[in-house]
Amino acid sequence: MESTTGAPTPTTYGVGARVSLHPMSDRYIEIILGALADAEPARDRLDARTGVVSTFVGGAEDDLLRYLSTLIGAAALRADGEHLAASVLLSRGCPGEVTCDLRSGPWASDASLATDATGVEAVAEWSLYPLLDADPSDGVAADHMIPIMAAIDQAKRAGLYDGSDHYVTRLRGDVADILTLVMTAWRGVGGAVQHVTSHLSFSINSPTQEQS
Amino acid sequence: MESTTGAPTPTTYGVGARVSLHPMSDRYIEIILGALADAEPARDRLDARTGVVSTFVGGAEDDLLRYLSTLIGAAALRADGEHLAASVLLSRGCPGEVTCDLRSGPWASDASLATDATGVEAVAEWSLYPLLDADPSDGVAADHMIPIMAAIDQAKRAGLYDGSDHYVTRLRGDVADILTLVMTAWRGVGGAVQHVTSHLSFSINSPTQEQS
Repeated sequence: MESTTGAPTPTTYGVGARVSLHPMSDRYIEIILGALADAEPARDRLDARTGVVSTFVGGAEDDLLRYLSTLIGAAALRADGEHLAASVLLSRGCPGEVTCDLRSGPWASDASLATDATGVEAVAEWSLYPLLDADPSDGVAADHMIPIMAAIDQAKRAGLYDGSDHYVTRLRGDVADILTLVMTAWRGVGGAVQHVTSHLSFSINSPTQEQS
Repeated sequence: MESTTGAPTPTTYGVGARVSLHPMSDRYIEIILGALADAEPARDRLDARTGVVSTFVGGAEDDLLRYLSTLIGAAALRADGEHLAASVLLSRGCPGEVTCDLRSGPWASDASLATDATGVEAVAEWSLYPLLDADPSDGVAADHMIPIMAAIDQAKRAGLYDGSDHYVTRLRGDVADILTLVMTAWRGVGGAVQHVTSHLSFSINSPTQEQS
């Protein structure tokens, strides 16, 4: 067990992601294993563990961003025009596998996040969840929708906003730009709320890219 | 615009789901379109709208359960042993596409949910998000982890609990049983918290079904 006293680290604070790749192709095993191998050098500073449904990676936000962008970009290149879906779940402030009794937050860096463009265009559905606890002794009113609305405004300013559907915001652009926006918003909310998660579903090379 | 005064309805309260199917097969279009057609009779009481990344369905929980179970079961049968992933996002208490300024909740039925078994075994990663607002005038302390821990206990009692990974609970069993458990927990939390979402990622016929 790592100590959770003193200043948090990405590991003690539970900063990480789960990612899964879904190539809609008979070559899916080759595409997934190839992309994981391609992205291996970008994983050097992350904890990683592949599960049955998805792969966990834990570590600092800039390392997570570089890894996720490299991995999804590599899978898209290997899919070579075939349809690919990818799912990303981001979480912070709830370390461990069951409970999150850590009470050292909120804690978040405000350094800017950036990574190289992948050259891969995607459409993505995005949701952001600030998981507030209500403590009347704080005397502070908090509305979980305020940071969500601010994040949607960030998307519009970044030119990635493609529309709002039920329960999700639709983004469109380079995979790296979408990940940078979403991870910046997720970490930004983390400065005010300890436990924050975000889900992102990418669709790449879809035969139905037109607006519905 | 529908009225949001008086007793809520599933539509005015924003009860619904987004679902996507990802057959890892060159036949993916045929599998997806075939499953959507197979499940069409189960969609008769739901609003539905297919988007670029996923399909929205809105309506009462029992109708949603029957539709999602029929759809994913049908896709698995059509995949005929090939690997299939499916994603479900459930939401309640935040109608509309951008803001959720409805303040008529919390509101949830406590009638039991059930649907026929599909005969399709799956592993799934599950997360449940009670989206509390902190209002000190309520004078009520609330911990968003309490309903999550109760839901994990429900999974254990139902015999569907397969383990806890970072950020998700892993479930294993018939697709219908997993959906019934997850939708019961999601609606149950909805009795105490207005805005509740839940994400579920299914893996069916995976070549890596063993525990990691």
